[in-house]
Amino acid sequence: MATLVLLRHGESDWNAKGLFTGWVDVSLSAKGEDEARRGGKLLTDAGLYPDVVHTSLLNRAIQTAQFALGEADLLWLPVKRSWRLNERHYGALQGKNKAQTREQFGEEQFMLWRRSYDTPPPPIADDDEFSQVGDRRYALLPPELMPRTECLKDVVDRMLPYWYDEIVPDLSAGRTVLVAAHGNSLRALVKHLDDISDDDIAGLNIPTGIPLRYDLDEHFRPLRRGGEYLDPEAAKAAAEAVANQGR
Amino acid sequence: MATLVLLRHGESDWNAKGLFTGWVDVSLSAKGEDEARRGGKLLTDAGLYPDVVHTSLLNRAIQTAQFALGEADLLWLPVKRSWRLNERHYGALQGKNKAQTREQFGEEQFMLWRRSYDTPPPPIADDDEFSQVGDRRYALLPPELMPRTECLKDVVDRMLPYWYDEIVPDLSAGRTVLVAAHGNSLRALVKHLDDISDDDIAGLNIPTGIPLRYDLDEHFRPLRRGGEYLDPEAAKAAAEAVANQGR
Repeated sequence: MATLVLLRHGESDWNAKGLFTGWVDVSLSAKGEDEARRGGKLLTDAGLYPDVVHTSLLNRAIQTAQFALGEADLLWLPVKRSWRLNERHYGALQGKNKAQTREQFGEEQFMLWRRSYDTPPPPIADDDEFSQVGDRRYALLPPELMPRTECLKDVVDRMLPYWYDEIVPDLSAGRTVLVAAHGNSLRALVKHLDDISDDDIAGLNIPTGIPLRYDLDEHFRPLRRGGEYLDPEAAKAAAEAVANQGR
Repeated sequence: MATLVLLRHGESDWNAKGLFTGWVDVSLSAKGEDEARRGGKLLTDAGLYPDVVHTSLLNRAIQTAQFALGEADLLWLPVKRSWRLNERHYGALQGKNKAQTREQFGEEQFMLWRRSYDTPPPPIADDDEFSQVGDRRYALLPPELMPRTECLKDVVDRMLPYWYDEIVPDLSAGRTVLVAAHGNSLRALVKHLDDISDDDIAGLNIPTGIPLRYDLDEHFRPLRRGGEYLDPEAAKAAAEAVANQGR
C-alpha cells in the first residue's frame, strides 16, 4: 500500500486581492504562510511522514512545501519540481480581478471560464505583462508546450505524464509522497484518482493548507474514494469558502 | 567552461551561542537569514544564475539556499541534497561551548580538534543527546557510514564521491551549480579544487554568506586558484572573524 498526500497552497498575495493568478508567480501572504505551517503541524500530529515532496515551479507551492516541511522538521526531504504541477494557466484573465470579471462578462461566462472542463479563457498575448513567455524557469520548455491558456482538461493532459512518470515510481518504491501544488493541478489529479466525470469535477473544491491523504492500492487507485483530510471539519468549511470566490 | 558557486551558511542559533554544532540540526538565526538573502542579492547583482542547487541535509544549509534563492527569484531551481555535504561531525564536542572547551583542554588541543587535518575529536556516544543515531533523515544510511566523529580528512573522503558522482555530472551538462553547505564540507571541496596540502588547509577559512565563484576547466579544476568571492572585501573581513572564534 502506498500513501499520497496532497497539499494545496494557502492564500497568496493575489488570492487576497481577488485576482486571477494562474502562472503569475506571486508569493504566499502571511496568512498563506500560516496555513502552510498548519498543514505541516497536521502531518506531524497524524504521524504522517512523507519521504519525498513534489512541487510545481511556482513560488506559492514551493513556499507551502517549505513552511509545512519546516514545521514538520522535514526540510531535508528530497524534492522534485515540475511545470506539469503548475496551476492552470488562466490565459488573458491572468492579473484580472475576479469580481470585476464576473460583473463585466456575467455569471454564466464567468463560471464557464472558472469551472467548465473544456472551455479555456482567451489566450494571453506574449507581450502581456502577465505572460510567462521568456521566463527563465521555462527556458527548457519547448515553445509548443508553453501554454497561453488552459482549461481543466488541458491541465489533466499535461499533469498526467508527471503522475505516471515521476510520482507513481516514488509510490511504487514504497515512499510516502507529498505533492504541494495548486487548486486546479490537484483537482486534475483527484479527477484521475477518483475517476470523477468531466461534469462532476466542476463541483469539486479542494481546500487550502489541509493535507489530503490517499492510501492507494496496487494499481495506485484510492482504497477510499475522495481520500481523507487530516482536518475534515476545517476542510469542509474551507471548500465552501473557495466555491464562493468572486461573489 | 563550467561555473561552480559555493555558499557557506550564515550564523545559526548555535554559532551565535559559540557552541560546536557539527551534525546537530540547528536553524539559522535572524542574522543568518539576512546573510543568506544578501548572498542571493550578490548572485543577482553579479548576473550569476545557478541552474541547480545542492545542499546538505542540515536545516541551516537548506534554509540558506532557500533564502538566497528566494531573494534571487530562483526558488524553482531543481535541488539535490546529501549527507555527504553535511558539516564535519564534531564527535563528543557537539553541543559543547567553544570558549569553555578551549579553556578546559588548552589552546593546543583546542586548535588540534578545530584545525588539524587528521585528528578527530573523541567519538560521541550513541545515547548522547547530541548524537544523530536514530534520526529519520539518516535512516537509509548504513550504520557503518554513520559518523560518530570526523576530522577534515574524513570529510574529504565522504564528500568527494558526491562531488564526482552528483556535482561534476551537472557541471558537465553545462549547468551552473550552487552548493549551499558548511565551513568544513566546503573547505574539503576547496582543498580538492585548489589542490591545497594537508598542512595548508588549516589556514583556510571560508566566510559565511558570500558566494564564492569558481570557473572550471575541462578537468573541473579552477581557471583561477582560490576562485573569486562576489564581495571580496567583505569576504576578507569575514574570514578573519571566523578564525577568531572561541577567543
